[in-house]
This record gives sequence, C-alpha cells and structure tokens, in this order.
Amino acid sequence: MNKIITVGREFGSGGRELGRRLAEILGCAYYDREIIAEIAKRTSLSETYIQHITEHKPVIPFPIHTGRTFWAVIPDYGQNVQKEQHDIIREMAGKSDCVIVGRGADYILREQKPFRLFVYSDIESKIKRCQQNESADYEKGETLSEKELRKRIESINKARADYYEFYTGQKWGAKENYDLCINTSNCSVKALAEAVSRII
Amino acid sequence: MNKIITVGREFGSGGRELGRRLAEILGCAYYDREIIAEIAKRTSLSETYIQHITEHKPVIPFPIHTGRTFWAVIPDYGQNVQKEQHDIIREMAGKSDCVIVGRGADYILREQKPFRLFVYSDIESKIKRCQQNESADYEKGETLSEKELRKRIESINKARADYYEFYTGQKWGAKENYDLCINTSNCSVKALAEAVSRII
Repeated sequence: MNKIITVGREFGSGGRELGRRLAEILGCAYYDREIIAEIAKRTSLSETYIQHITEHKPVIPFPIHTGRTFWAVIPDYGQNVQKEQHDIIREMAGKSDCVIVGRGADYILREQKPFRLFVYSDIESKIKRCQQNESADYEKGETLSEKELRKRIESINKARADYYEFYTGQKWGAKENYDLCINTSNCSVKALAEAVSRII
Repeated sequence: MNKIITVGREFGSGGRELGRRLAEILGCAYYDREIIAEIAKRTSLSETYIQHITEHKPVIPFPIHTGRTFWAVIPDYGQNVQKEQHDIIREMAGKSDCVIVGRGADYILREQKPFRLFVYSDIESKIKRCQQNESADYEKGETLSEKELRKRIESINKARADYYEFYTGQKWGAKENYDLCINTSNCSVKALAEAVSRII
C-alpha cells in the first residue's frame, strides 16, 4: 500500500510549506491546488468557483416544515464538486506515495490509514507569516492592516473548521484525529520538515 | 538558559517511556517520581500521600453561603505539598537541561519557555500497553480484566485532567498549550524517541 501523508493546517501556520518540503524530502508526489485544477478539468467549472465550494460548507437556504418534521434543503450545486474531489483524492492516493494538503483527505482516505499531520500556531505567528508572504491563501495584491489580517485569518480558519465538520462529522484540529500535531509558532518550517520526515 | 522539556501524557500512552528515552538521547537529567521523593524528604510526609495529593485536585468539602456570595472552602492540607512541588520543579529546571514528566511542569515553568510535549493514544493502545506492563502507574500485582483496566485508565486520566485544569486554568491536552502532540497508537516509543529528539 502507498505511503500517504495528509496535512491538515490552520491558515497562516506554514502547513502548506511543511507539506511541500516533506514531499521533497521523501521524494513523493505533492497534491494541493492540483486537486482544484483537476476538478475544473473534469467538470468545466471555474477554479475560483470550485475553490469556494471546497472551502465552505454549503449554505442551507431555508428549512421546510412538513407535519412535525423540519427538513433542511441542501443545495446540490456543490455535490458534484465534492464527489469529484473525493474521487480524485482516492485516485491520487492509489497512484503512488504522496502528500495531500487539506481537503479533509485524512477522513476521505481513512481506510488507507494515512499518516495524519495537523499544523497549527498562535495568532501572532500566523500574522507574521502572512505579512512575510510565506502563505498565499488570501488574494494577492491586497494590503491589509494587522487588525484586518487577524480578522481574515480567523474567518478563513472558521470556514475550514465548519467545512471539515460538515463533511466528516469530526472536530477539525482535535488531536485524537491526527498522528502528530505540530505547533509552528516561532519555528522555522524548513528545519522542522527534516525532523518530521523522520517521524513519518 | 537551560533546555527544558516537559512531557504531559495520558496514562497508558507510553509518555513516561518517551520522556526517559529522550533524556537518555539528549544526555540530560530526567525527573518524574524523583519529585515525589524530594517532596517527601522536605515535608516528612509519606510518598503515597504525596502522590495522591499531586494527582488529584482537592476535594471541596462544603460551600459556605454568606449574604449573596458562595465561598468554596479549599482544604489546606495539600497546599504545602503543592508549594514544595512548585519550588522543586523550578530548582530542577534551574540546575541543568532536563526532561520533566507530568505535574503541570509546562505551566509551572511557562516563563522559561520549555519545549512542551503531549503524548496520547487511543484507548485500545493504552489497554495493550498496560497489559504488556510497560506502564506502572496502577498498583503492581493487581490483575484486572480488560473492562476493569479500561475503567481504571479512564479514571486516572480524568483525575489528571481535573488536577491540571484546577491548578493551571488550562485544558489538559489542548494542543494550543503544547509544541508537539504525539499519538503513540500502534507505535514503537523507542523508534519515536530518536525522531522526536531531532525536532526538539
């Protein structure tokens, strides 16, 4: 069976960089935005739209009340995208050893028993990392004050937690769901990657 | 400043073994039950009694109601022991590089910025580890059924969580309070120790 490493990460924690470096050290495939591009190819939807769908839990527009039962109507516009993402992640994991960043891959691939990393840090470190532009999840070219950046980081991480919990029924970042949780506050991700690769 | 490593650990997770091995690899002092022995020496109390005090939050015997305010009466029989433990941990950390297992040392030494490990595992691994006698926190010579052992493990860990939260105001095992959280389920602690020492 292929060696699969999944990387859950708080936005601003350097988790993506850690994943990329791990793949380099271990000499295996690395999947992150490649998944979005592949969904776009298969569905003919735009990458921006797909990115939104795969980073937010669906909005439930209205409840219907019939007799004593409330029904939540979940729009199906996102279901195809989710299904494609699911299939693509399984295909990638089936192909070769790999590192997969985000997208609930730890849960999707749970039967393959991946090594499940979670990367986090304190808010000050996140702000510093974003200011140094190591991370690129918010729109490039935007100039945010520290206060705005803090708000943005918190809101992206809230969306990640909601998305993960909606699709997996598990709590995002709860250590029980991971093999190793790494706090990158005041840490060099480059130096960490080498040591983490040995644990894996 | 000395390099200090604190090891929080769920009972049955192999955290004590990991701490001991880390100290060996890093060539530094290791403190665990030594702290109990030292408190006993300084207070003339029995080690069994001290162990109980340092593993359970105090029982609050009765609330007093005066006017509109409730007062919780906390017995002071444990306060001396807690103070001694505090002082001893600080002295040990001041002496040389060291690994300190349990006892809320991560919180007591927070100003010295120790490297804070937390070691955990799933319940099945804990039961297996205890059956293999790698851990020795419950009384030797006892023969427990798997069901009894599971209950014992859960109750010891509940006491550890309560104790930690009572004295630190923090949630025991919440990853935000640690630098590295390691899941030892189905893992060889011996192999882990080498890799973890590199991260530190």
